[in-house]
Amino acid sequence: LLKAEIIAIGTELLLGQIVNSNAQFISDQLAMLGISVYYHSVVGDNPERIKAQLDISVRRSNLIIFTGGLGPTKDDLTKETIANFIHRSLVLDQDAMKSIEQYFSTRSMEMTENNRRQAMVIEGSSIFINDHGLAPGMAVFEKNILEDTEDTYFLLFPGPPKELQPMFTTYTVPYLLSILPEKKVLHSRVMRFCGIGESTLETRIQDLIDTQTNPTIAPYAKEGEVTLRLSSLTKDVDEAERAMERVITEITARVGEFLYGWDQDSLASVVVKGVGKKHLTMSTAESCTGGLLGHLISKVPGASQVFKGGSISYANEIKELQLGVPKEVLEQYGAVSEQTAQYMAEGVKERYQTDIGLSITGVAGPDSSEAKPVGLVYLGFSFPTYTIVKNIHLGGNREAIQLRAAKLALFYLVKELQKGE
Amino acid sequence: LLKAEIIAIGTELLLGQIVNSNAQFISDQLAMLGISVYYHSVVGDNPERIKAQLDISVRRSNLIIFTGGLGPTKDDLTKETIANFIHRSLVLDQDAMKSIEQYFSTRSMEMTENNRRQAMVIEGSSIFINDHGLAPGMAVFEKNILEDTEDTYFLLFPGPPKELQPMFTTYTVPYLLSILPEKKVLHSRVMRFCGIGESTLETRIQDLIDTQTNPTIAPYAKEGEVTLRLSSLTKDVDEAERAMERVITEITARVGEFLYGWDQDSLASVVVKGVGKKHLTMSTAESCTGGLLGHLISKVPGASQVFKGGSISYANEIKELQLGVPKEVLEQYGAVSEQTAQYMAEGVKERYQTDIGLSITGVAGPDSSEAKPVGLVYLGFSFPTYTIVKNIHLGGNREAIQLRAAKLALFYLVKELQKGE
Repeated sequence: LLKAEIIAIGTELLLGQIVNSNAQFISDQLAMLGISVYYHSVVGDNPERIKAQLDISVRRSNLIIFTGGLGPTKDDLTKETIANFIHRSLVLDQDAMKSIEQYFSTRSMEMTENNRRQAMVIEGSSIFINDHGLAPGMAVFEKNILEDTEDTYFLLFPGPPKELQPMFTTYTVPYLLSILPEKKVLHSRVMRFCGIGESTLETRIQDLIDTQTNPTIAPYAKEGEVTLRLSSLTKDVDEAERAMERVITEITARVGEFLYGWDQDSLASVVVKGVGKKHLTMSTAESCTGGLLGHLISKVPGASQVFKGGSISYANEIKELQLGVPKEVLEQYGAVSEQTAQYMAEGVKERYQTDIGLSITGVAGPDSSEAKPVGLVYLGFSFPTYTIVKNIHLGGNREAIQLRAAKLALFYLVKELQKGE
Repeated sequence: LLKAEIIAIGTELLLGQIVNSNAQFISDQLAMLGISVYYHSVVGDNPERIKAQLDISVRRSNLIIFTGGLGPTKDDLTKETIANFIHRSLVLDQDAMKSIEQYFSTRSMEMTENNRRQAMVIEGSSIFINDHGLAPGMAVFEKNILEDTEDTYFLLFPGPPKELQPMFTTYTVPYLLSILPEKKVLHSRVMRFCGIGESTLETRIQDLIDTQTNPTIAPYAKEGEVTLRLSSLTKDVDEAERAMERVITEITARVGEFLYGWDQDSLASVVVKGVGKKHLTMSTAESCTGGLLGHLISKVPGASQVFKGGSISYANEIKELQLGVPKEVLEQYGAVSEQTAQYMAEGVKERYQTDIGLSITGVAGPDSSEAKPVGLVYLGFSFPTYTIVKNIHLGGNREAIQLRAAKLALFYLVKELQKGE
């Protein structure tokens, strides 16, 4: 049975300059592989303290994962200290050397002797090539570190997350699968939801979360969205895929109305894809979100294919002037009203000459306006032949209300586009 | 001499569901106080493993800080385990109890017996009241944990960052100052810069960073901005303030042209304040940022006093239609050009009836357009009597280019507003 712990080497962590995101990332990956993590530690880049930590760790864990301390300078002593601990030497790895040389040649940069040191690896280790930097990762195992112990695995990774993360998913996950006592494959999917709270979604599928082991179901909530990650770790790929299909069908039957996408999708990317598929164009009219809705859409590469622009109509006179919301509507119902949302959506659709107009008007707070409560938001959706308005009540601070309002506008647009498909 | 370590208790951390932001926050706070942190650890909520960690920690540290595991359920055993370790009992704290009762009464919620358990603290400890939740923090010290040791301090904090952080700055920093061998006060300021890279700024003041001890200078870079935190830990408050003043004057003399604000300021809040002070109004015209500039401004509470709105003119025909950029200008110079930026800034100023018009047009990538390179951005600033355009070249991916372009637009506006002040 693998008992894992993660040891980060780095002064920046101990000074509070950066957060230990590597420990989170690796823990999450190991959880998917069914490997339990019992400890995280952070230790300074100091051979005595790394050695003392090794003395503690080998007594309680047999999969000991190091991050950081593989840089080119003489201060980076992780490799040397671990090699000494298991009485091995450092040797030059040809594959790592080739990869480092390539890194420099594609960038027309000069390689230094220090960089050559980065191709030195612990004798007998398996190498994880670094596709996004210099220091390779490595895995080495040793029998009988203490009397009667089974194999103890030491894994070493470079510290920068943009190097470590792709290295881990590409090379380390297969390596770990190969050392699991039973040969297994990992298969995972992410289901993305909006318009439903985490606890409500969890309650509706609690029995599945509690009982399903293939795939397991892990819910996460972030910024007004909820995701479910389904992970299946099995010997039989066909059976895994059938089980995955069954669980997805069951989840969709219960909460499918809130499902907007899969895996790498974002709300905005699904909107851009959906509007593009119908060969339509769209525009936005924003009051309380001040441009956030437009920005979320414009973050998607290629958004310009469907998104022509929009009006940030923060002041009432701008709603009148730029979107044609009648003065009487603003006076009678207020800027935060169903009527204004409708005029804004129709107005921007017409004036920006698009097929779809999306509008948001509401009270983001901290102060209420027009005697309307903080968190009250109207969303308008104008299509070529009809317009609908939804009103929602959002909790949280100004920033959370703005973000949720923009995301719900995208979510309801996705749902409206899917109708009749 | 205080040697600190931070131990987080929590299964969510070991499963990779959350990142250990508490360790970062506390390490950063301790660095300001001149207290060195030698280790971070994460351990599951399990009495044997917490006990084993204590056995390790008391041998190497004398300021042992725990986060998490103070919840109301029977699983949360941190308090009990530490109390047992130092042979003390848990006692009801009246102040903590009062604070918990108040929490429930102001929310008209029912208090349970479990919540009462949260007012139980380790005998003899000093309490840190929780102003944003239930579980109080506490500090307790013990002599001679091992033979001949000096005092060992144990500090316990609730896990949620929004409870821990204000508790730490309000109550714990004064407590820690009181146990430092010499009585000292902490004084700190943050200087905020934009328009200059972290390494360039550091190079220009490297000698100050290396030699100044009162105040110390800590640079951080984030999202196109650089901050310098000056921290002064001294006995003599007057002398500290004079030293702070001297260092600030020296830094300002070298890199003051890039300084935009202090402490809690943001670029957008400084813009809103600066435009408001002059009793002016402003509007925005955005192409490649798609609404981000407007959104950054609208995130500032009270932005509506100066920001009337703007046009997201993503498509060329919208720049023509909504901002009056002449077709010939778009055809001759392209949408990403000095001329277009100028027409956009002047157009939005006029059509949105404001005193200031701000425009952004550029290539955010990943693909280049109009045979212009990714990262080329023009910023337009139109004031009542003149218009200026700046061109910039930004690195990074699409999102980074969008964010930096919007921030630089705000930064140059701040600088322009400050001229002649």
